[in-house]
Amino acid sequence: MAAGYLQTGFAATATFELFARHLPGRRNYLVAAGVEQALEFLETARFSSEEIDYLRRLDVFRNVRPAFFDYLAAFRFSGDLWALPEGTIFFPGEPVLRVAAPIAEAQIVETSLLAIIHFQTLIASKAARVSSAAAGRSVVEFGSRRAHGIEAAVYAARAAYIAGCDGTSNTFAGHRFGIPVYGTQAHSWIMAHEDETDAFRDFLAIYLENAILLLDTYDVRTAFGRMLDLGIRPRGVRLDSGDLRADSIWMRQKLDAAGWHDVQIFASGDLDEDRIDELLRSGAQLDAFGVGTALSTSSDVPNLPLVYKLTEMEVDGQVRRAAKLTEAKETYPGRKQVFRFGGGHEEYSGDMIGLAGEQFLGAEPLLLPAMRGGQRLAPFDGSPAESVVDARRRFLDARKHLPERLRALHSTYPSYPVHFSNRLQQLLDDMRQSLVKSTAT
Amino acid sequence: MAAGYLQTGFAATATFELFARHLPGRRNYLVAAGVEQALEFLETARFSSEEIDYLRRLDVFRNVRPAFFDYLAAFRFSGDLWALPEGTIFFPGEPVLRVAAPIAEAQIVETSLLAIIHFQTLIASKAARVSSAAAGRSVVEFGSRRAHGIEAAVYAARAAYIAGCDGTSNTFAGHRFGIPVYGTQAHSWIMAHEDETDAFRDFLAIYLENAILLLDTYDVRTAFGRMLDLGIRPRGVRLDSGDLRADSIWMRQKLDAAGWHDVQIFASGDLDEDRIDELLRSGAQLDAFGVGTALSTSSDVPNLPLVYKLTEMEVDGQVRRAAKLTEAKETYPGRKQVFRFGGGHEEYSGDMIGLAGEQFLGAEPLLLPAMRGGQRLAPFDGSPAESVVDARRRFLDARKHLPERLRALHSTYPSYPVHFSNRLQQLLDDMRQSLVKSTAT
Repeated sequence: MAAGYLQTGFAATATFELFARHLPGRRNYLVAAGVEQALEFLETARFSSEEIDYLRRLDVFRNVRPAFFDYLAAFRFSGDLWALPEGTIFFPGEPVLRVAAPIAEAQIVETSLLAIIHFQTLIASKAARVSSAAAGRSVVEFGSRRAHGIEAAVYAARAAYIAGCDGTSNTFAGHRFGIPVYGTQAHSWIMAHEDETDAFRDFLAIYLENAILLLDTYDVRTAFGRMLDLGIRPRGVRLDSGDLRADSIWMRQKLDAAGWHDVQIFASGDLDEDRIDELLRSGAQLDAFGVGTALSTSSDVPNLPLVYKLTEMEVDGQVRRAAKLTEAKETYPGRKQVFRFGGGHEEYSGDMIGLAGEQFLGAEPLLLPAMRGGQRLAPFDGSPAESVVDARRRFLDARKHLPERLRALHSTYPSYPVHFSNRLQQLLDDMRQSLVKSTAT
Repeated sequence: MAAGYLQTGFAATATFELFARHLPGRRNYLVAAGVEQALEFLETARFSSEEIDYLRRLDVFRNVRPAFFDYLAAFRFSGDLWALPEGTIFFPGEPVLRVAAPIAEAQIVETSLLAIIHFQTLIASKAARVSSAAAGRSVVEFGSRRAHGIEAAVYAARAAYIAGCDGTSNTFAGHRFGIPVYGTQAHSWIMAHEDETDAFRDFLAIYLENAILLLDTYDVRTAFGRMLDLGIRPRGVRLDSGDLRADSIWMRQKLDAAGWHDVQIFASGDLDEDRIDELLRSGAQLDAFGVGTALSTSSDVPNLPLVYKLTEMEVDGQVRRAAKLTEAKETYPGRKQVFRFGGGHEEYSGDMIGLAGEQFLGAEPLLLPAMRGGQRLAPFDGSPAESVVDARRRFLDARKHLPERLRALHSTYPSYPVHFSNRLQQLLDDMRQSLVKSTAT
């Protein structure tokens, strides 16, 4: 596509917007995440000479003129970017990113921008549900081993923390983003020792009051008895299988009877937001949750309908709006801004998607300039760790402003009110009209 | 865990096995993939001094002696690895990897090995279904933008190709692994031009007989007419929405009437194996498929129950078997080998999971030595591109030997017969007995 634009001398500045078509599954809202990594990508995107040689040799490019490969060799993203700050709650149709750049550049970065924003937004939107279900108890992201690869594991930890989880077992993410890390005993530790009591004693000797002992390798209640008999107080115990409700109630009672009131009961093992909700409603005595695969793969909804669509072009100083008019995949033309009503001491009351430049009294514009001419702008120029802290604070604050019904785990009606402005509606109608005319002629 | 083993002087060689607990969703078999990347990881795994400093400062490690951090600084994987060659079809309980290493090493590499093998095996196992459904027609992996990040996009392309897809739209994967790459026109190309005919003409001028024109930006049949009127034969046309069956039948007839018999009709747009199967059964005239999100996220089953379990330890020359005996998560002890019956001119007739060293007449042992003392062994020492070609050939051959019923898209009964050898069964029974004794005492 980029080769085509260059070869035909198609010199336009294009605006593309990245947004969700609809809310999938039981999501009532989405949480923007990954903007920091999108900016890193835009700053550093290059083509190596090896990659360019590879492309040059592809049969499909045999009629492409050498200028294209020179263009790739010199490639730097030189465009502008507007973005929702990470941790912002958003809804279908609302751009997370708005890219304005020479059309070939905007096209070249499409797939990577989508892949980056899509994944972290997916996981943050899932994590928001999980942390809501835990109702104030700690949630630790435990899903590295079944995330979709090593990179995905790191960014899943990041996105989960942004959306209200309290830490991760991924120490690489801990190091890179300053996310609190947690580890516990694994089954293999117990299995490696001939005697379960020895396994507990050795672990406690090293990890002291940070130790969390795993009780379900052989028999949960026997293991619990061995731990009590040892008489060394751990930070907590972990149940990874079995009847979490019954075992936790039984253990809480025994722990309290022993005066070990502050020893926490930690649950893990195929947990997700529904299971956590069900456990807590049924009276399980659980203080913290380790959530793995369901969180790191967003297992009920493993992808979001995020798209990156051309909405406007400027050619020779002339602005032209673009839209896709196919039924069911229709998009609105024009450069957009998202306006949110409410906030402060009030709940959010609804959003208006308008044209950039429109104003709505009492509404906050959510898209902020993040990059100009390929350079980051404040507040998008902090450290990787700062971006996470800010995003998490922003999300936790935004969630408080969300109407209560939208925090439910099931789909809620009425959904959050989002409207398109009259001017946007008019632009779309005009485009439809002109298509009818051009099809008729 | 590693710190614990080192600090307590726990000097054991441990064997861990990576296997699937069960077949999830409608999978009748799984396809091993990612071994090449697992080997790369084991060869290159290191801790940087920055990472070590970070770990040293963690409160949880405050009682860990400095020797542990020296150990990390000098860390190299020095163990042995046995693996199923990539592209091998396998079943629950059968190790994809068997790692034998000092226990701290084997523990340190656990999460990464799982993350690497899990993801590519997940996608290869999905791609096998998609390529089966296409029944000999081409399938191109199109899912980069919604894979779980940029790295996942590349490995999804690799895994999909191994399991019978014919190429990818990911040029980075094309370059790195020699996978055929395909591109087509995007909606934005059409939208960027004021006139759809111009958009087609410009594209054809560059891409000649490689051009695939996208017809559904505004109105599919109008676009098709414009293309025919242009009179320049493309390689194919692509339908990305609408009634793919009706439109493809209508177009095939018009294309043939125009003498354009070799112009292919390419379908995309939220396709998966079920939709492809349904389209072909209903008589859709489709020659090739672009499959995106459903493939790159394995959307119906976005994770597999792969685990990494301690099965044996050698301490001071003494061999001790390990197993987890919790109900529903039980594992078999001992170092295993997988023996497959059939093959050659016959279908596979069943597998036996036995102890390494056992022999079964007429059965092929599937696990091969891949690494000794941290060094790769042939045939696991080829180039990244060779690994892909070999793996794809192996998979396509293996699929031919799979009993027909297992290639169905739905779960099939009887499932493929997999048995544990008498010796393994005996080992497990012995362990259960000794647990009963130790719990009773």
